[in-house]
Amino acid sequence: MTDRSADIDRIMDPDSVAIVGASTDETKRGYQAIKTLQKGGYEGEIYPVNPSAEEIRGLEVYPTVSAIPGRVDLALIVTPAPIVPQILEDCADTDLAGAVVVAVGFGEAGEDGQALEDEIVRLANEHGVRLVGPNTSGMINVHQGLNLVGADTVPEGNLALLCQSGNMAISLFTEAATRDGVGFSHYVGVGNEADLQFHEYLSFFDADPQTDAVVCYVEGMSDGRAFLEQAREVTTDTPIAVLKSGRSDVGKRSASSHTGSLAGDAAVTDAVLEQAGVVSVERSDELLSVASALSSLPSADGDNVAILADGGGHATLAADALAERGLSVPQLTEETQAKLKAVLPDAASVVNPVDVAGGTDDDQSVFVDCAAAIIADPNVDALVLSGLFGGYGIRFADQYTEVEIEAAHDLADLADEHGKPLVVQSAYEGFDTEPHAVLRENGVPVVESLDVATASLEALATYGERVAAADESSDFLLTGDTDATETITDLLSRGRTQLSELESKRVLSDANLPITPFELATSPDEARDLAAAFDGPVAMKIVSPDIVHKSDASGVALGVDADEAGDTYDDLLAAARDYDLDAQLDGVLVSPMADAGVELIVGVVDDEQFGPVVMCGLGGVFVEVLEDVAFRALPLTEADARSLLSDIDAQELLEGARGNPPVDHDAVVELLVAVSEFVEDNPSVSELDLNPVFATEDGVEVVDAAITLDTDPAVPVDSELVASGGTTDD
Amino acid sequence: MTDRSADIDRIMDPDSVAIVGASTDETKRGYQAIKTLQKGGYEGEIYPVNPSAEEIRGLEVYPTVSAIPGRVDLALIVTPAPIVPQILEDCADTDLAGAVVVAVGFGEAGEDGQALEDEIVRLANEHGVRLVGPNTSGMINVHQGLNLVGADTVPEGNLALLCQSGNMAISLFTEAATRDGVGFSHYVGVGNEADLQFHEYLSFFDADPQTDAVVCYVEGMSDGRAFLEQAREVTTDTPIAVLKSGRSDVGKRSASSHTGSLAGDAAVTDAVLEQAGVVSVERSDELLSVASALSSLPSADGDNVAILADGGGHATLAADALAERGLSVPQLTEETQAKLKAVLPDAASVVNPVDVAGGTDDDQSVFVDCAAAIIADPNVDALVLSGLFGGYGIRFADQYTEVEIEAAHDLADLADEHGKPLVVQSAYEGFDTEPHAVLRENGVPVVESLDVATASLEALATYGERVAAADESSDFLLTGDTDATETITDLLSRGRTQLSELESKRVLSDANLPITPFELATSPDEARDLAAAFDGPVAMKIVSPDIVHKSDASGVALGVDADEAGDTYDDLLAAARDYDLDAQLDGVLVSPMADAGVELIVGVVDDEQFGPVVMCGLGGVFVEVLEDVAFRALPLTEADARSLLSDIDAQELLEGARGNPPVDHDAVVELLVAVSEFVEDNPSVSELDLNPVFATEDGVEVVDAAITLDTDPAVPVDSELVASGGTTDD
Repeated sequence: MTDRSADIDRIMDPDSVAIVGASTDETKRGYQAIKTLQKGGYEGEIYPVNPSAEEIRGLEVYPTVSAIPGRVDLALIVTPAPIVPQILEDCADTDLAGAVVVAVGFGEAGEDGQALEDEIVRLANEHGVRLVGPNTSGMINVHQGLNLVGADTVPEGNLALLCQSGNMAISLFTEAATRDGVGFSHYVGVGNEADLQFHEYLSFFDADPQTDAVVCYVEGMSDGRAFLEQAREVTTDTPIAVLKSGRSDVGKRSASSHTGSLAGDAAVTDAVLEQAGVVSVERSDELLSVASALSSLPSADGDNVAILADGGGHATLAADALAERGLSVPQLTEETQAKLKAVLPDAASVVNPVDVAGGTDDDQSVFVDCAAAIIADPNVDALVLSGLFGGYGIRFADQYTEVEIEAAHDLADLADEHGKPLVVQSAYEGFDTEPHAVLRENGVPVVESLDVATASLEALATYGERVAAADESSDFLLTGDTDATETITDLLSRGRTQLSELESKRVLSDANLPITPFELATSPDEARDLAAAFDGPVAMKIVSPDIVHKSDASGVALGVDADEAGDTYDDLLAAARDYDLDAQLDGVLVSPMADAGVELIVGVVDDEQFGPVVMCGLGGVFVEVLEDVAFRALPLTEADARSLLSDIDAQELLEGARGNPPVDHDAVVELLVAVSEFVEDNPSVSELDLNPVFATEDGVEVVDAAITLDTDPAVPVDSELVASGGTTDD
Repeated sequence: MTDRSADIDRIMDPDSVAIVGASTDETKRGYQAIKTLQKGGYEGEIYPVNPSAEEIRGLEVYPTVSAIPGRVDLALIVTPAPIVPQILEDCADTDLAGAVVVAVGFGEAGEDGQALEDEIVRLANEHGVRLVGPNTSGMINVHQGLNLVGADTVPEGNLALLCQSGNMAISLFTEAATRDGVGFSHYVGVGNEADLQFHEYLSFFDADPQTDAVVCYVEGMSDGRAFLEQAREVTTDTPIAVLKSGRSDVGKRSASSHTGSLAGDAAVTDAVLEQAGVVSVERSDELLSVASALSSLPSADGDNVAILADGGGHATLAADALAERGLSVPQLTEETQAKLKAVLPDAASVVNPVDVAGGTDDDQSVFVDCAAAIIADPNVDALVLSGLFGGYGIRFADQYTEVEIEAAHDLADLADEHGKPLVVQSAYEGFDTEPHAVLRENGVPVVESLDVATASLEALATYGERVAAADESSDFLLTGDTDATETITDLLSRGRTQLSELESKRVLSDANLPITPFELATSPDEARDLAAAFDGPVAMKIVSPDIVHKSDASGVALGVDADEAGDTYDDLLAAARDYDLDAQLDGVLVSPMADAGVELIVGVVDDEQFGPVVMCGLGGVFVEVLEDVAFRALPLTEADARSLLSDIDAQELLEGARGNPPVDHDAVVELLVAVSEFVEDNPSVSELDLNPVFATEDGVEVVDAAITLDTDPAVPVDSELVASGGTTDD
């Protein structure tokens, strides 16, 4: 095996390329690929491979890859799928680093295709060749002129694109082509991810001097957890923006009210990507602008955005758009306001949003004076300039263009000097004006849409927050390989997987989670004694490995006084017997009634893309009807837990709505971290459900618990599910 | 007074225009306005008015408007504010229909400005002149070449723009200028709405053959209710799209600090505009596209949208985007699927979304075959074609352009034939290709953004739904002028305005609302007898005009048995006495305990823009924390009430979540209509609060009620508030 990261360097930045399936037929991809490389100015060696041709476009043709005299870094294989194995066999003794397999008919095409895919992966591994695809539109190194896709010209720039749809790649290329200052360094159609997966390209892009941000279009990741691990490392230097599609399908699945089915939700994806420092983008029409802003601007140190507008309409709309995205529009300091007053007319608004109210009509350098005052304000983390800037020369008088060009330089310098992001929204964006060109050349994005401008600012704030928190966040590494809790080993040895409440609580108590005290009564007398010992009314629940839903079996009695506990014991057993004549009845669980506070639900689910994920939300209707739950991938740090808690929508209930005191946040955080540690330390636990958990001002208590064990826990991600999900480059 | 609608015709489509404040100075607006008219090809008479000039740009100058020999339809007044009154005075004996007052320094500039504004309105009324503005960037009749703004060239088209921000108008003009097939018939900067208000322009646009849709940018309407009335009439023929800013708190602050307008509650605005058939748009970057789609496409008969994509990426993203907006992506019929299978490769997906999977690569007429099958499907109300269409000639081979042009004609014909909206999203939108031009010429929108395409489809579905429901919806006319309920007249005569629970319930019972039975006990014995008569535990509440919050005074007891009712009576009185020694205590209200079902809150609020509005939501945390409430303007029809109910987010609770039966929707609807009728019939009622209302499967019961009376109820909208809100054209 050769060094894998060196292999990826050779694949992404190859000195020589073999075109396997090269053709003399000008309509074939095997011809066009060569033509595109030559026309693109690719300076490496090009080796056409075809057993039955001698020369193509002036190049010598080789019968096989192994017959090529020089070292070949990368092969583009454009043959049909069935021929790919023999091509890889032929590479056994070559030093080929990688192969881009374009053909369809692999994993995405059913069982036979999957067998063929498994076969080429096996061969590739055996011969030390890494595979891109199969089922990919190809890859492009834009700066090198290495275009293995044959797409329209790809605008050169600083974005690396990882894409699971060829047409989406074309969309992004064409969008960039119509906009100045946005372009690409690399494109990889990851295809079926049979060998090389999304995360494996990240380190290369992180190190690549021509790449300043990574853009991903993802339908499904075959190893989401590895992506999190890798992204966390990369995003401290190189921002990553992800558009994850298939949101509605998983949304539908998550709508089924049961907790377990919340796994795989778009909400999980958004949450864990953010945890890893990745910026999630929901709209395809915002992806490129957001990525471009991330690539050229510093991140924001907070979410306080100032608006500088040359009209009340834009000022108001900008404020609305920022608020809609959860950003703040803070008041400016007295000092800043005084500076603004000094340069603006009386009618101007010098709070935030700042409306120059005609103050720039005759002299656009006033924008610079205003921006200088605002961007120096300690209350301000980022600035959006909104309205007509860059169009005054068109709108009013030609001579203003020169003033605006000067102002554009000054604005870019200001942003640079203060290290705060500046985004310019202009109605004249579509007119390709010189002031806009100056801004873009100096890394200041100019966009037509106020909503896209605010999306960019939101991304910069999110990214800034995540980078700042990176040290305190999860590394996504799961260390446990054998179960740390003996009770679990015991239970597994007895074949128990769906643990009863009693079993679950015993396991969790052993792990020191804050479980409401409980005892097993096996007779009416014992029940009475236990209830009396708990001093106060108790909760009593039937214990049976055969009864999963205790309420359905009338197996729960709440607020039982000690003197009724014996009778209640008999009633519960009788009801359970009524419900299921053959059920094994182990007795009745007796617990003191918990202090009802705010009802929470805490769980761990095994997400099919990202592995184990902690879920927490408000209980009852909030989870069942409103799905107000939040997620973080294991292992949770304290910061992750706190951030998770802050993602719950109905924060007011945690803060003490309706006259209640706030719940003990530290205790909830501690519980979440303990749950994470417990599951990490016990890889057999595939599912955990604490419902309800009562949180009060004094702490938390877990009132009911259910654990599901997996007898084959070696791989935290359900690999079968993943393997069945083929992905396609259109 | 002349005929007002004839006046507006003369203003919007004038045969002659006076430029008051005309100037020989080329830098002045009084010069530029004339130049713009001449260059724009305006064919009417142009009369410069200036007491100290003789000729401007070849035109004779008149000293005053009254000195002009011919009839003048419209005057553009570009003088400073203080001179406007004398200009209007001079028009006393002319037949001037209207004047556009550009100057600032009126209502938006404080008290003195407001006085000046009141003065010009008085003079204008007196002399039969309607005012546009003041504080407006002007108006434009694009087809007539009548540009009184002097903006950049405005693209000609079929959209009429009513706008409360000059810069927003420029933004929309420049956006349209960079996009084929989108343009304007008229622009009016409504300014301060001192005389002519938003709604007064609508009838003109409805009748105008050059206008197919109206676009509004609104910060605050001075007569929102009149807009609803008028919009309801107009929208049956002419769609209206509104972007309402000032949605957020900070946006509201911005609107009021810069313009003084009352932005109002965004949720109320959205709801009542929709009730009137108006399409609300939330993003400024979607306004023009949505309005354009509304102007050129038929409305959709339902929300079932088919997706025809040439790639899996776009298919998936389109499905996500439609689902996100609440549109359906229905299965196609077997017949449609069979037709699709016949023309597409095996790898294609023929359910919805349809992915042609390469089936159009060599022959784009296959799009037509697919679209023909899909658009004829009875399950389909609208179609979005997504991907690369119109770009095959660029992407693959030149000769495809001809095929695409032919296909574009066929696609437009198909949509036309079936009367279903078709929107085309293409990555090549920015390349101005011929196939796209053909689509646009035939009324099919082509957009770059999938999100904008789906926004347009959502608008067409919403609009279609509203047009279909128009006959069953409110006419927004409030008929009551004196209170119909005697109890209210009595209470008012006694100076009562904040009615107690007992008073409120008496009033509402008289109006036959479903109030939980109640009786007033004035002694312990009476309380006991009443409780016994109600047969079952009762609720008891203190009755005092001096105690508004009964719970704070420990003035409520629930679930009281008859034999405890006497003691409870004494306890409640003692507690009330404790709470407020001087409170007048009238006794205790005794009611049977209501069947707790789903807790609702129903109310009527007097919205500052739209007047009385019914509000309904789920009670408790749902209203207090989640603000899950919905609104409709009075008077509510049954259809309005049903629609209101369906706007509540947590529908599952009404449908019977958590094992409960569904609530009696008819009873809730009946209550909402009754509440609306009650308030309409009693204009003194300025606020009504029924909280809680319990809804069960058997009906509804109002458990608590509070009414606020207004002693001066003549005008349902608070006219003082409105008068203080000047608006500004930037």
